[in-house]
Amino acid sequence: MDRDNILLTPGPLTTSLRTKLAMLKDWGSWDADFNALTARVRRGLLDILHAGDSHVVVPLQGSGTFSVEAAVATVVPRDGHLLVLDNGAYCKRMAKLATLMGRRTTVLSFAEDGPVDPALLAQRLAEDPSITHVGLIHCETGTGVVNPLAEVAAICEAAGRGLIVDAMSSFAALPIDARTVRFDALVAASGKCLEGVPGMGFVFLRRSILDGCAGRSHSLAMDLHDQHHYMERTGQWRFTPPTHVVAALACALDQYEEEGGQPARLARYTANFDTLVAGMAALGFGTFLAPEYLSPIIVTFLAPADARYDFKAFYAGAKAHGFMLYPGKLTEVETFRVGCIGAIGPKEMQQAVDAVAHTLAGMGLSRAD
Amino acid sequence: MDRDNILLTPGPLTTSLRTKLAMLKDWGSWDADFNALTARVRRGLLDILHAGDSHVVVPLQGSGTFSVEAAVATVVPRDGHLLVLDNGAYCKRMAKLATLMGRRTTVLSFAEDGPVDPALLAQRLAEDPSITHVGLIHCETGTGVVNPLAEVAAICEAAGRGLIVDAMSSFAALPIDARTVRFDALVAASGKCLEGVPGMGFVFLRRSILDGCAGRSHSLAMDLHDQHHYMERTGQWRFTPPTHVVAALACALDQYEEEGGQPARLARYTANFDTLVAGMAALGFGTFLAPEYLSPIIVTFLAPADARYDFKAFYAGAKAHGFMLYPGKLTEVETFRVGCIGAIGPKEMQQAVDAVAHTLAGMGLSRAD
Repeated sequence: MDRDNILLTPGPLTTSLRTKLAMLKDWGSWDADFNALTARVRRGLLDILHAGDSHVVVPLQGSGTFSVEAAVATVVPRDGHLLVLDNGAYCKRMAKLATLMGRRTTVLSFAEDGPVDPALLAQRLAEDPSITHVGLIHCETGTGVVNPLAEVAAICEAAGRGLIVDAMSSFAALPIDARTVRFDALVAASGKCLEGVPGMGFVFLRRSILDGCAGRSHSLAMDLHDQHHYMERTGQWRFTPPTHVVAALACALDQYEEEGGQPARLARYTANFDTLVAGMAALGFGTFLAPEYLSPIIVTFLAPADARYDFKAFYAGAKAHGFMLYPGKLTEVETFRVGCIGAIGPKEMQQAVDAVAHTLAGMGLSRAD
Repeated sequence: MDRDNILLTPGPLTTSLRTKLAMLKDWGSWDADFNALTARVRRGLLDILHAGDSHVVVPLQGSGTFSVEAAVATVVPRDGHLLVLDNGAYCKRMAKLATLMGRRTTVLSFAEDGPVDPALLAQRLAEDPSITHVGLIHCETGTGVVNPLAEVAAICEAAGRGLIVDAMSSFAALPIDARTVRFDALVAASGKCLEGVPGMGFVFLRRSILDGCAGRSHSLAMDLHDQHHYMERTGQWRFTPPTHVVAALACALDQYEEEGGQPARLARYTANFDTLVAGMAALGFGTFLAPEYLSPIIVTFLAPADARYDFKAFYAGAKAHGFMLYPGKLTEVETFRVGCIGAIGPKEMQQAVDAVAHTLAGMGLSRAD
């Protein structure tokens, strides 16, 4: 087999061989050994947020979006009112799934090229006492912008409203401390900055709201209250768990701790990011976001304006050189995205920049600008 | 590493090393190579049911139960009425999830120790024209009993009602032919008789009902109509797919075809079953079901009445000998279950019977009866 291409995508991403090798075993989902594996993963996840005293963590089968939907369904009462702070594609997805399940949903829109504004949130909460919960995307993967989680959490706490955080692409890389940042639910998944394989998400739920969540969900599969109580009682998942994905996540968590946890992971991703942005700038690639809004998770680059540029050909060229880029998710500006996350370091990122340079040259362009 | 224990459980089950090795690669979920993998899996699944002309197949992230819930949500209109034929635990689960999502649901109960009775279904459909859909579990894994799918389908067709089949534990082993058996939806999953790893399900949907399914689902994640249309348009999954699970399933499908497809798989499972039931009978173990209702998928055995028997100790003993059994799922009779499915043959099944004999002896019992 040839060496695999490196994924510069925001999940699925490149995982270590050790993580993948952890999938070479079949586990009985009823067995005590597997229950212990699940318990170990749950403890490890709680430790990352320092949330062992304040929260429980409930794993859920499916993609991260399934866990976002489950969090909204479990936490927002049927007669609740969710305000979604919208500055990108994943914000819109949260609003859409909340609306579809029948929860009253309001969208507070912000420009896509910057973070949401906590002052406008405070004003809206003061104006509309019917809002029971706020939905926030921590790092909006559509652009890469990081939203001000701590400020938003403080405003929600002061206003006595619940907060649901989609931290899919930031969890385990950007610092989040449940001892100082109050949230009702925080959602992430196996195949992002923990560098596991995709197939499960997990939701941190504040202990003090747990009892009130019984019976809220419109969905049996997505009822996190039920999933949590069953797991506490039996040690097992309610329905067949993705056993190999869980085993890979447990192994990825071991490597995360060995690397030095969140500070070390962030340092590596920041080194990737610095290498990427500097290298791309030298090729004439500008970023969609202003420098102060960039995050070391995923970077949105402006596509070259030259008529010889075509994303499909650009993607194919980079892939032929061993690197998989990611398409843009903006409707009005032509962009592409490059992830800084996964089991890669600055060495691979420099190779990726070199691959982009070769690809540009192959299109007859010496620079992107 | 020691040799892994063999799982005699109805999924997750023992998979081949070749299937697990297919997970040693990371796939970009946006990439053409992965789209081709998804397309190949979908074609292979349709071929198994001879359903390429009549149905589409929609894969879904999560456990098989997620796909059952998605099938009900997508196929039964919000003002529809689902009649669930109930002879076991998985029937009850279907009724529960349909009720929870707000669909009118009626349960027609049958004894757990035999199949459902098509004549009673025909009578109920004649009496109640408000019933729009019927829900059937093909092989009820709670006991192992096989329900009369062809007869139930014929009655539903004659009465002009839709049929949703949970074929989780029968698909790919028991014969089902979409050219002669009419169903609106049929649900199965990766980690059962196809011998893939768990983490995704799939639903066959009748082409002629597809357009009518738009907008029915209460859940964004579980909207199979939306998932199907997105996949047809882009070749991609709507939300992050469990890439490694999909790759394992593609590899498992290759092995399925190489083995000789459904007839060969059924023949192997039948040989496992024959070895198991004969061997256990020689040890004094009776089956919960009468012989004519047993299936080569999973067998429910009556626990020894002797006070020295204890399931936990029995399970631990068999595990120490290398075999993982499965607990019973009946409330009134003490039982345990043994799966006949997975990447194992009669040789492993004879070893399992020998392990049970040693375990019984270790408990001070010479026979089970």
